[in-house]
Amino acid sequence: MLLTCLDLEGVLIPEIWIALAEKTAIPELRLTTRDIKDYHELMRKRLQILDRHSLRIQDIQSVINTLEPMDGALSFLQWLREQGQVIILSDTFTEFAMPMMRKLGMPTLFCHSLEIDKEGRIANYHLRMENHKAESVLRFRQLNFYTIAAGDSYNDIAMLQSAHEGILFKAPQAIQAEFPQFPAVSQYLDLQEEIAKRAARYKS
Amino acid sequence: MLLTCLDLEGVLIPEIWIALAEKTAIPELRLTTRDIKDYHELMRKRLQILDRHSLRIQDIQSVINTLEPMDGALSFLQWLREQGQVIILSDTFTEFAMPMMRKLGMPTLFCHSLEIDKEGRIANYHLRMENHKAESVLRFRQLNFYTIAAGDSYNDIAMLQSAHEGILFKAPQAIQAEFPQFPAVSQYLDLQEEIAKRAARYKS
Repeated sequence: MLLTCLDLEGVLIPEIWIALAEKTAIPELRLTTRDIKDYHELMRKRLQILDRHSLRIQDIQSVINTLEPMDGALSFLQWLREQGQVIILSDTFTEFAMPMMRKLGMPTLFCHSLEIDKEGRIANYHLRMENHKAESVLRFRQLNFYTIAAGDSYNDIAMLQSAHEGILFKAPQAIQAEFPQFPAVSQYLDLQEEIAKRAARYKS
Repeated sequence: MLLTCLDLEGVLIPEIWIALAEKTAIPELRLTTRDIKDYHELMRKRLQILDRHSLRIQDIQSVINTLEPMDGALSFLQWLREQGQVIILSDTFTEFAMPMMRKLGMPTLFCHSLEIDKEGRIANYHLRMENHKAESVLRFRQLNFYTIAAGDSYNDIAMLQSAHEGILFKAPQAIQAEFPQFPAVSQYLDLQEEIAKRAARYKS
C-alpha cells in the first residue's frame, strides 16, 4: 500500500516566513538558516522580531489566511489522495499551517507546535521531534507501507533517503546538483507522473 | 500534539459486510468471527461466496456507494480534524473503504488491501500487517504524539490499550463489561466531550 510523504512549504504552499516578511513589510523575517546557521538561534530571533512588532498569533494567522496554495497544488493533492495515503511532513508549526490546511482539504499533517500565551503572544516553540521527517518515514516502512517522499530543500533530504523512493520537487539547482540520485521535477504534472510510474512498478 | 486513532466500521460508517449481506440479499455474507473463529478461514469463505454469486469489485463498490456515514459522523470528524491529527485504523480493505472515505472528506486511512484481477474478481486479500492498529499507535507515540484511540470491538482493544487514552464508542454491552477500564460512550457529542477533556488535561 502506497503512502506518500510531502513537504509543505515550497511544495504545496508558499514559504510562510517569507510570505510573512512580505505581507507585514518586516524584511528581517526573511532570515533563514542560510543567514543564521543554528535553527534554534534563528527561531529565537524570529520570536524576538514578532515581539518587537507586537505581532500576535491572531495577526499572523490573518496574514497566512490571505495566502493561497500554489497553482495546481490542490488538484495534485486531490489526485494523490485517490492513489493512496498522504501524510504531510513539515517543519512548520501547526498554528501557522492550519489556515492553509483548510484550503488544502485537511490532509494529515505531522509538524511542530507553538506555545501561545493568553494574549496570543508566541511565548515559545516546541519541536515535536528532531529529524521527525525521516523518523516518520522509517515508521511508516515498519508498518509495511511502500513510501514515496517529495520535498524541495535540505531538511527534506533525510526523508527522501529514508523512503523507498525520493523525488526532488521545485528544488533549487544547487540541491539538485548535490543530490543527483533523486529525480528532480518542478511541475505538478511531472511529479504526478513520477509518482504514478513508481506506484505502478511497485504493484506489478 | 494530539493524534486521534479511530476505528471505521461501527464508529463512523456501518459494518460493510453486514451492509453487503443486506443489500445483496446474501445472508451468508453476515458471517463474522463469532461464527467462524479463524479470520483467514472467514475471509476465504467470504471470497468463495462472492465468487459463487459472481460479485466483482465494481458490484461491491456500487453497493458500498449507496451507504452513508452514520448520523453525526461527518460533523464529529470535522470537529476532530480541527483539534489535531486524525488517522483511521481499520481492518477493512482500501478498495471497500474508498467510496466511504470520499463521503468522510478523505481522512487518512491505514487498512489492508485486496488483490483484484483484470475482470474485477477479488482473487485474494492482503493484510498489510497483523495487529496493525496497536503497532501504528506505538509508532505514533514514538513520534511524540499524544494519542487517543476510540473503537467499538474486540479488534480495537489492543489499540485502546496502546494509546495514552482509550475510549469505547458504540461498543456492545459485553465488551463494555469486559473492559471497564475504558470509558464507554455511544453518542458523538459524548465522545467529543471525552476527547476534549483529555486533550485539555494534556495541554495544561
